[in-house]
Amino acid sequence: MKDVRIIVTGGTIDKVHDMASEGLAFSPDGATHIPEMLRIGRCDFPTVSLLMLKDSLYFDDADRDAIARAVAAAPEPALVVTHGTGTMGRTARFLQGVAPDKCVVLTGAMRPFSLYASDGEFNLGGAVVAAQLLAPGVWGVMNGRVFPAERLNKNTEQGRFDV
Amino acid sequence: MKDVRIIVTGGTIDKVHDMASEGLAFSPDGATHIPEMLRIGRCDFPTVSLLMLKDSLYFDDADRDAIARAVAAAPEPALVVTHGTGTMGRTARFLQGVAPDKCVVLTGAMRPFSLYASDGEFNLGGAVVAAQLLAPGVWGVMNGRVFPAERLNKNTEQGRFDV
Amino acid sequence: MKDVRIIVTGGTIDKVHDMASEGLAFSPDGATHIPEMLRIGRCDFPTVSLLMLKDSLYFDDADRDAIARAVAAAPEPALVVTHGTGTMGRTARFLQGVAPDKCVVLTGAMRPFSLYASDGEFNLGGAVVAAQLLAPGVWGVMNGRVFPAERLNKNTEQGRFDV
Amino acid sequence: MKDVRIIVTGGTIDKVHDMASEGLAFSPDGATHIPEMLRIGRCDFPTVSLLMLKDSLYFDDADRDAIARAVAAAPEPALVVTHGTGTMGRTARFLQGVAPDKCVVLTGAMRPFSLYASDGEFNLGGAVVAAQLLAPGVWGVMNGRVFPAERLNKNTEQGRFDV
Repeated sequence: MKDVRIIVTGGTIDKVHDMASEGLAFSPDGATHIPEMLRIGRCDFPTVSLLMLKDSLYFDDADRDAIARAVAAAPEPALVVTHGTGTMGRTARFLQGVAPDKCVVLTGAMRPFSLYASDGEFNLGGAVVAAQLLAPGVWGVMNGRVFPAERLNKNTEQGRFDV
Repeated sequence: MKDVRIIVTGGTIDKVHDMASEGLAFSPDGATHIPEMLRIGRCDFPTVSLLMLKDSLYFDDADRDAIARAVAAAPEPALVVTHGTGTMGRTARFLQGVAPDKCVVLTGAMRPFSLYASDGEFNLGGAVVAAQLLAPGVWGVMNGRVFPAERLNKNTEQGRFDV
Repeated sequence: MKDVRIIVTGGTIDKVHDMASEGLAFSPDGATHIPEMLRIGRCDFPTVSLLMLKDSLYFDDADRDAIARAVAAAPEPALVVTHGTGTMGRTARFLQGVAPDKCVVLTGAMRPFSLYASDGEFNLGGAVVAAQLLAPGVWGVMNGRVFPAERLNKNTEQGRFDV
Repeated sequence: MKDVRIIVTGGTIDKVHDMASEGLAFSPDGATHIPEMLRIGRCDFPTVSLLMLKDSLYFDDADRDAIARAVAAAPEPALVVTHGTGTMGRTARFLQGVAPDKCVVLTGAMRPFSLYASDGEFNLGGAVVAAQLLAPGVWGVMNGRVFPAERLNKNTEQGRFDV
């Protein structure tokens, strides 16, 4: 059984309904929902690191560098990175080669966990398992499918990640 | 990308609250929740077969034979069997050797999907991914971990599947 | 026991998460959630009329005229109007005198029903009861309180209707 | 605006899923869900008193005496008593005359709040409003209807309170 670390970077999976704007935002208290998702999934072994809470459409190279450093520094062989869907593929390709001995799996959601009926738990459950089973490298796990970094692309029209 | 079939046998994952008894039961209309769970997970590719809706504590050899026949008959190389947690390990061991070229993954939940805040989506997301990644054989995927059939055992005290 | 009609005009209570914009919108199929809310509340007697699905911030006089006509035409003595919170007070005052023999209760929600953990069910339950108990006139019921039309005002800062 | 106190006695509204028995039970930590229900309903003014957490089918005269004493001792003019549906009518009739100047409203749920999609919020929202509007006396508010104590009876077949 491999140790797993989840590195939280934000994205829709971690957003909440903001009553004032009637849009989505991150919690004003800066909290992530990943620990509660693991508790509901009765999955008690991953270590969770909150790196940032950002919409991946606004990621710049400094953000991706920070993720790369967190991936390189993590002692675990199996890493899950929660991430916005907008630029998940781009970050996956950015991370290639950063930690050649580790299995890095990006995941996220199209609907926030905090709105219920979210794809977040299904995706996170897949990513945690995939990070323990896949070979070292960078992968995406979304909607029941596994994608190598170079083929991780959002189908914006369908709202899912497709082959 | 492998084709995946989900064979539904019941278990807690598919139970509903029964108002009269204040306990859990299967839907009076005989329906399974797995298609709705896939829809929420935005996972549109698995084929779902409803084989039975039973509490696995009441499974007998005829029930396990029926599952074995469904596993052997399925044309897909990757199978997920939703199953009660009570005797999941026993059924896994019963299925060993039934379809040596297929990857068979058993999963389920400690809390029904229909009660929300269920581990069912996390587990199902893990099982669908694992069925595509694991070698042929019989496995269990629960709470973020992958177990070979011979080591698939419920920790009744903790309410999870442990190493 | 009085007959109750619910006239649906839209507002946050009936919005859904829109994946493309990451904001709130009405269902593309033009459906209202009020019947499902009644089903969950096990409240089977109100008649539901879908008049429009609009954000009340964009209501004009033609919209308020349409509501007034629906209120005047309804055969029931007790009416609930679901409405956006933004201009609920203004519509309440517009409706004064339109149907002097009827009890008209406006209600809505700060968080959509479809996002769960919504105040919509609590508010709707209060409005359906209040419409049967209050004297003829125009009222608002929000967050456990009853307001006459002239004192129905949203506390934007607190996100509730206050005394 | 009247002050409102909610006296919690248990019942289905406050039960949780018990994984070991696969039935319903009260929280092992003895907590009530009423404050969370009020928070979701954005209703911040009632005072909540946790008197007991019991299934009303097992209430005896000592339990009903304890409720009567709590009703008589409460300083507020408007009281809501959360209660199991099984003997709600019997307790309502027991409470008649105990506090002739107060309005006492019993309510509860057919499905626990903690299982989501519960009638609890709809019922509680109705009860909090009714306690402020009704005349002194003992009433039940369930499923959108208001019943005087002498006519408060569960329709066990339909799973609701009917006229």
